[in-house]
Amino acid sequence: MNETRHHVVVVGAGFGGLEFTRALDGAPVRITMIDKRNHHLFQPLLYQVATTALATSEVAWPIRHLLRKRKDVTTLLATVSGVDRAGKRVLLDDGDAVAYDTLLLATGARHAYFGHDEWENFAPGLKTLEDATTIRRRILLAFEWAERETDPAKRQALLTLAIVGGGPTGVELAGTIVELAHEMLRGEFRNIDTRQTRVVLIEAGDRILPNFAPELSDYASKALERLGVTVELGRPVTRCDAEGVVFGETHLPARTILWAAGVAASPAAEWLGAAADRAGRVLVEPDLTVPGNPEIFVVGDAAHVLRPDGRMVPGVAPAAKQQGRHVAATIEARLAGDATPQPFRYKHDGDLATIGKRAAAIDFGWIKLTGRPAWWLWGLAHIYFLIGFRNRLAVSLSWLWIYVTGQRSARLITQGDDDRN
Amino acid sequence: MNETRHHVVVVGAGFGGLEFTRALDGAPVRITMIDKRNHHLFQPLLYQVATTALATSEVAWPIRHLLRKRKDVTTLLATVSGVDRAGKRVLLDDGDAVAYDTLLLATGARHAYFGHDEWENFAPGLKTLEDATTIRRRILLAFEWAERETDPAKRQALLTLAIVGGGPTGVELAGTIVELAHEMLRGEFRNIDTRQTRVVLIEAGDRILPNFAPELSDYASKALERLGVTVELGRPVTRCDAEGVVFGETHLPARTILWAAGVAASPAAEWLGAAADRAGRVLVEPDLTVPGNPEIFVVGDAAHVLRPDGRMVPGVAPAAKQQGRHVAATIEARLAGDATPQPFRYKHDGDLATIGKRAAAIDFGWIKLTGRPAWWLWGLAHIYFLIGFRNRLAVSLSWLWIYVTGQRSARLITQGDDDRN
Repeated sequence: MNETRHHVVVVGAGFGGLEFTRALDGAPVRITMIDKRNHHLFQPLLYQVATTALATSEVAWPIRHLLRKRKDVTTLLATVSGVDRAGKRVLLDDGDAVAYDTLLLATGARHAYFGHDEWENFAPGLKTLEDATTIRRRILLAFEWAERETDPAKRQALLTLAIVGGGPTGVELAGTIVELAHEMLRGEFRNIDTRQTRVVLIEAGDRILPNFAPELSDYASKALERLGVTVELGRPVTRCDAEGVVFGETHLPARTILWAAGVAASPAAEWLGAAADRAGRVLVEPDLTVPGNPEIFVVGDAAHVLRPDGRMVPGVAPAAKQQGRHVAATIEARLAGDATPQPFRYKHDGDLATIGKRAAAIDFGWIKLTGRPAWWLWGLAHIYFLIGFRNRLAVSLSWLWIYVTGQRSARLITQGDDDRN
Repeated sequence: MNETRHHVVVVGAGFGGLEFTRALDGAPVRITMIDKRNHHLFQPLLYQVATTALATSEVAWPIRHLLRKRKDVTTLLATVSGVDRAGKRVLLDDGDAVAYDTLLLATGARHAYFGHDEWENFAPGLKTLEDATTIRRRILLAFEWAERETDPAKRQALLTLAIVGGGPTGVELAGTIVELAHEMLRGEFRNIDTRQTRVVLIEAGDRILPNFAPELSDYASKALERLGVTVELGRPVTRCDAEGVVFGETHLPARTILWAAGVAASPAAEWLGAAADRAGRVLVEPDLTVPGNPEIFVVGDAAHVLRPDGRMVPGVAPAAKQQGRHVAATIEARLAGDATPQPFRYKHDGDLATIGKRAAAIDFGWIKLTGRPAWWLWGLAHIYFLIGFRNRLAVSLSWLWIYVTGQRSARLITQGDDDRN
């Protein structure tokens, strides 16, 4: 690759960074893709790893394999520690630096605990593959320990799983966990009846799926309760510890708590020394550049971007991909001599969430779908968006297997010695 | 289950313990299966997880799911800390105890470093799922780091992988790693040529696959060298550290060292306070009972069992399964009133090892196979022995995919923060 070409550095191979790189195919640039992990993660299906339906390798693929045919792209496994804006260099934690002409930060988000980081030990969130295997391990261990527990109160606390946050991730976790307990594990234990497992979904607001139309929130609540989930609305969680979770006046003894509420952006704003919102998202210009640095872009969950009506662009994969394409078009225009800033316009495709393996809620705005038709549409859409034929095939097979036999295939408790996996 | 029935406690759900439990189906006993992991591991295919060909969930299945239809079996996830022979109780590390009438210890083996436990950090072995993901991570990270390394000597050390031990595991690791480097990763890096990767198989004896007929050892050496593996014979390893491995006068700079030499039995002998061989295997009576305790049996890799010709029964799955069936028959005979000790007789089915994805060596004694026919027979045999249709299907699909496309599907670096996974 010609070293004199315009050098674009991308940090983060999530949906935004990868779509950006794809959109620049054929442009007169050379690209360096930096990620601290070796794999792109298909986050929309991560909850299925956490609940034993899919294997880790079915939702994650090596970045350099995805980009292997792009001779203009160099992939580096490295951890970024800062950005030298004046010197136009990305700083790595091992002391190296990578110079750029244009920089794209697409570094995503982690979960946040609203100032209560001490809750993380008791209520793991779901953002990485390790998060998913940690949650899978905790769920499966709760049943194993319950099987050996003779104290009825302790046993009930082990058979109680609380999920904090009623967005799509919380709803999807609740639905698949209750099915795991009530259907798939049934008959495998001798001292407990897994059908007595309580799954409680706790949402601080007055309805779950708050981004959906209210009638879909109602539908989802009823569908979850039919599956056996208890939905608790209107009271925020004020405490998580080894005993359980407190919301309002209620103390719910629960040995397993999962965190699906609140995200915080990656440290991109800190690297830049740029202004950020309370969740840490960089306050970018309408064209997604960093104020004062038109050669630096931030996209996806790391960026705070407003829609014309003043609402924020949501932290979903389609938004990140649209932003990635927008920045690619901007760079191509600049290289062609047109430096006019083009504001990013978000096109909202819709919202969707599954409820167990037989229902879903889909809100396209102009049409709303529920029940089995929505579930099938959701499944087809996700298989379509999976990267690479191998994974489409593998995921389809896994789902078909679950659908036909009612059994999940990845019920592994790994790394029992510590809580990291 | 009738609490007054004869109570059989099994520790370890490997090949021996599981086969034993299956053979006792319908017997007038109740069985408690104790394992510290929630899954049975199909160890013969573990090297394929370590080398990215199979996902973890394709070689491991929940024990209680395998035994779900056996209402006479209770499965416990628990760690054994000792055996109270006088009180006939298995002691658990959390202070609980499980009383038995008959006890089967089928606790397997770990790798051993011949008194050099400090080598383990530098040269991980392959016995558990976590071992496999650790090795997978180290192999993949070596290439990632080489891509960023500018010092030629350090880069070459990163691109050198040493495997210690020329038994089937070492041969299989060497063959799949060299194919990964020379074929599958080719073209994905920009600063290194993965075809320059050196894979060195180090065996202290004068030939690899020492349990096979000499002509098969020769064949395997030649087949490995054709793939690009360097085979080093006749010099034992005297040092492993962060710089590499020393054998004889040779110091080989290698950042990745894998340990496939030497096993040590589980602490079953310590639990019992029983006599053991140097590797820790319990010296059992010909009927597999512990001397002085006819109600305690030890099978599989945890037991030292001699064949009529004085050689030891090898530590392979068929031997453990045969022993499990033998003990089940002994218990049934005793319950029927016949307490005559029956000596175990090992029937050796043969030895087999694959060499990459196109060759294998099979020694049935009366017939020896090599090349592609052996590889296909090996593949069919392993699919046949895989437990559960789902995994047969999934593994077949994964292998077919690799065979047709040349790509492997589980190239994940997980748990980058520490060395445990």
